[in-house]
Amino acid sequence: MPDPSTVTAALVIIGNEILSGRTRDANLPFLAEKLNALGIRLREVRVVADDEGEIIASVNALRARFDYVFTTGGIGPTHDDITSQSVARAFDLPLVEHPEAVRRLVAHYGTPDKLNEARRRMTRVPEGASLIDNPISAAPGFRIDNVMVMAGIPAVMQAMFAGIAGTLKGGAPMLTATVGCGLAEGQIAADLGRLQDECPTAEIGSYPVWRDGKPAVNLVVRGTDRGEVANVAEAIAALVRRHGGTPVVVAP
Amino acid sequence: MPDPSTVTAALVIIGNEILSGRTRDANLPFLAEKLNALGIRLREVRVVADDEGEIIASVNALRARFDYVFTTGGIGPTHDDITSQSVARAFDLPLVEHPEAVRRLVAHYGTPDKLNEARRRMTRVPEGASLIDNPISAAPGFRIDNVMVMAGIPAVMQAMFAGIAGTLKGGAPMLTATVGCGLAEGQIAADLGRLQDECPTAEIGSYPVWRDGKPAVNLVVRGTDRGEVANVAEAIAALVRRHGGTPVVVAP
Repeated sequence: MPDPSTVTAALVIIGNEILSGRTRDANLPFLAEKLNALGIRLREVRVVADDEGEIIASVNALRARFDYVFTTGGIGPTHDDITSQSVARAFDLPLVEHPEAVRRLVAHYGTPDKLNEARRRMTRVPEGASLIDNPISAAPGFRIDNVMVMAGIPAVMQAMFAGIAGTLKGGAPMLTATVGCGLAEGQIAADLGRLQDECPTAEIGSYPVWRDGKPAVNLVVRGTDRGEVANVAEAIAALVRRHGGTPVVVAP
Repeated sequence: MPDPSTVTAALVIIGNEILSGRTRDANLPFLAEKLNALGIRLREVRVVADDEGEIIASVNALRARFDYVFTTGGIGPTHDDITSQSVARAFDLPLVEHPEAVRRLVAHYGTPDKLNEARRRMTRVPEGASLIDNPISAAPGFRIDNVMVMAGIPAVMQAMFAGIAGTLKGGAPMLTATVGCGLAEGQIAADLGRLQDECPTAEIGSYPVWRDGKPAVNLVVRGTDRGEVANVAEAIAALVRRHGGTPVVVAP
């Protein structure tokens, strides 16, 4: 089903706190939705520890396979913030102070002496990187080639993304229609599989849920052609009726 | 910092619905906490699409590197449920009907004729796999070698995990102490880095937050030795006081 002209992305979530369960990631669902709206498919996500080798391996594996790679986390001033140096090593580039980042942090902290050595780490980027603005707490993210390095704090990440969204080259936005019904997945699975075979350019997903203690299912059609998505949704609704169900359709 | 005797795990979350932002994953935080309590470190998570090649590549990459690999999602009766066949291919094993799985599904659906072809797919496992019980909706998960294949629906996954938790060989549980304070990360970053250097077997994480519109930070110590974790937390509290902050310590 993947169209080779589709614009794709991957996300690397960097942080021991996600892997330990201490912090619940909120950046994946945010980026998934935003990228979708821009016509960019999020195809893979990796959550890795604050470990240089892991970050390098993930960034290098994913930047070769996808149009864009986003990273979140690990760009603060403390010893466990090692994303910038790891990305520089992934690109085999020196890590250098970005003069504009220095200027911004001096302005943010008010006096040059408050830009201590630890905070100064936040001004370092791989040589040649361009800054990603941080309107909330000043310390910028950066872009190098197809890799966008952003903060882990959701409010800061979201503000950074708002600043770069316009620079991303998207494809056709993915449209979604949903057909809910009170049937069990297993009743309609065979017919649904046949419908998917007949409509290979639309992606049909089947998501079981419990509703009032009974199995139910949401059938989701995704595709870039509004007419096709609507037609497949209607075909699913007809299929549900044939099996004695009452479809509830949310059009694309 | 990684101790070679540490028991490690990875998680593969399988499902287009997570990557599209439609569904927010709840299995990562659940497993992270449960594994932690068993002394198993979750070291990497990948979210991949309902794509056989992606599932095979992830499972094979991770099962070679970690003691355990858990997968969630893609074991239902519909065409987009391709986890079992993908894992069988990852192991280069035939996919076969498990007689006990057939028996359970016949019992669950009441009559053999309700176990239609689509539902019968849920009885297939890689040859030699053992079943993971599903006390909620009968269709089992399975374990093959160090890979545990579980459902994506959180309630079902949690019930499956409860059934296998006792079979997992853990290490020393990870203990955590937290020191909160109203200082900014950048004020204490240098001293904190020095403390981490002095205590290489404890993992010190620094997690900035905004509290009442002001920067604050939670400093987290993780380790397997309760005395050491408590001592490092006390050293952090002293460090915070030195910088004029008021530490709030939550002991391990």
